[in-house]
Amino acid sequence: MLAAQQVEMDMGADLDGFAEMTPLQLRQRYRDGLCVPTAGAARGFTQVNLVSVPERYALDFMLYASRNAKACPVLDVVEAGQIESALAHSSDLRTDLPEYRIWENGEVVQTKTDVVREWEQHPDLVTFLIGCSFSFEARLLEAGIPLRYIEEHKNVSMYRTNIECRPAGAFSGPMVVSMRPIRSVQVPSAVVVTSKLPSVHGAPVCVGNPGSIGIEDIEHPDYGDPISFHEDELPVFWACGVTPQAALARSKIPFAITHAPGYMLVTDIPSQAYAI
Amino acid sequence: MLAAQQVEMDMGADLDGFAEMTPLQLRQRYRDGLCVPTAGAARGFTQVNLVSVPERYALDFMLYASRNAKACPVLDVVEAGQIESALAHSSDLRTDLPEYRIWENGEVVQTKTDVVREWEQHPDLVTFLIGCSFSFEARLLEAGIPLRYIEEHKNVSMYRTNIECRPAGAFSGPMVVSMRPIRSVQVPSAVVVTSKLPSVHGAPVCVGNPGSIGIEDIEHPDYGDPISFHEDELPVFWACGVTPQAALARSKIPFAITHAPGYMLVTDIPSQAYAI
Repeated sequence: MLAAQQVEMDMGADLDGFAEMTPLQLRQRYRDGLCVPTAGAARGFTQVNLVSVPERYALDFMLYASRNAKACPVLDVVEAGQIESALAHSSDLRTDLPEYRIWENGEVVQTKTDVVREWEQHPDLVTFLIGCSFSFEARLLEAGIPLRYIEEHKNVSMYRTNIECRPAGAFSGPMVVSMRPIRSVQVPSAVVVTSKLPSVHGAPVCVGNPGSIGIEDIEHPDYGDPISFHEDELPVFWACGVTPQAALARSKIPFAITHAPGYMLVTDIPSQAYAI
Repeated sequence: MLAAQQVEMDMGADLDGFAEMTPLQLRQRYRDGLCVPTAGAARGFTQVNLVSVPERYALDFMLYASRNAKACPVLDVVEAGQIESALAHSSDLRTDLPEYRIWENGEVVQTKTDVVREWEQHPDLVTFLIGCSFSFEARLLEAGIPLRYIEEHKNVSMYRTNIECRPAGAFSGPMVVSMRPIRSVQVPSAVVVTSKLPSVHGAPVCVGNPGSIGIEDIEHPDYGDPISFHEDELPVFWACGVTPQAALARSKIPFAITHAPGYMLVTDIPSQAYAI
């Protein structure tokens, strides 16, 4: 089934119920082909970005993530050829995300709901699972901070910035950020609440003025959906686990697999388990 | 000596040295008549706002502070007629602040560098010492966040807001806030750093849009000095211990003494002692 068809088919589904589903139930749905962003799903559980690279690039990527830990907090590394993450019981990294991107020479050549065939052709893929800011949504909502992209069943807005990551081996590129509109009087709470979860990006990297981090047009995100602003709201920017995809684009390594931005692996780990 | 003369006389003094003076040394200077704002003084030590009211208003005020603890965190209460605070060795509350305000029926009728005579005329004053955001300046500076009002030897900007405090007995009024211009990319650090010191107002109450808390004209603060903005800076607002003065103005109790906004009691307590 094509991804676009599936989205259309599921838009009528009761996506609100996804907040209460277990991670295992959700992974099964995605494994069966459901293709929707995971924003708001399995509320309170940790979600992770996926980057699978051939083994010869694994050390370079590990260094890149380590040097840019605000954007790339590594929560699990799955050895070459292995398909199950310790973060998700009975998981299959090739099927359990709602959408994947296939990369060749720095370009996305295909978008798919499973990557079983690609894994057969590249049996030495090492997979990095990187904390995602969707993991702190429950904490923001508990603090009374609404999240419009969840209310509107959209994907979060993401942007490439002019913040250059520290390079490592084959990898270099800009930091990518996710953006949430937050009311002026709730910005302090949003910062404090998220600062307590550094493993999923922690406190924001910028509040207000998008130009200060090189974002020219807030209405046209580089990834995800545009989100409207209400009166009194400021854009608040968090480091984002799509940062490695900007590095893949620039670094042009011959092959890689990633999740599609916003279509994460939902793990069994409560986000509170990472709280400081 | 008149306050204005004293300020003029001391403007040439090396105010930068004030950051390294001990609280006791500073209190002695203020006791001797020095009249300058305490921003930046005795860096790393807790500063407090002073409110002295006749004993019959003390319970009302205690309730008011308790109900509005974000703006009025009470760090010490000094019983009727006592002049030394447990927070400051050998202190004399009548002389050790650089400047005081005398209030009658909700109006400031006089500004003075000591209040010895007024204390004789009102021997039953109960004094409340309320945490001041000057106490977290050292932590902001350590985090690499510059504070322009200190660099320019000015007082911080303060504003009355449209955030109504919870009333108690004789007291009601709006929250007052202090404002610091902070670069967009440093706002998150400023919030996180100050959130760890809730006894001196903690995290801000608002970031950006002054209109969202009823501030019409950022260039004309209600108390303190106007502070210029540089490119990429947002106004960040913290609850302020001048809030009781807005309550005195509205409540029109017959007599009270306060510090002059920005002219605080410098205590012996390291601000880190209040850190969470």
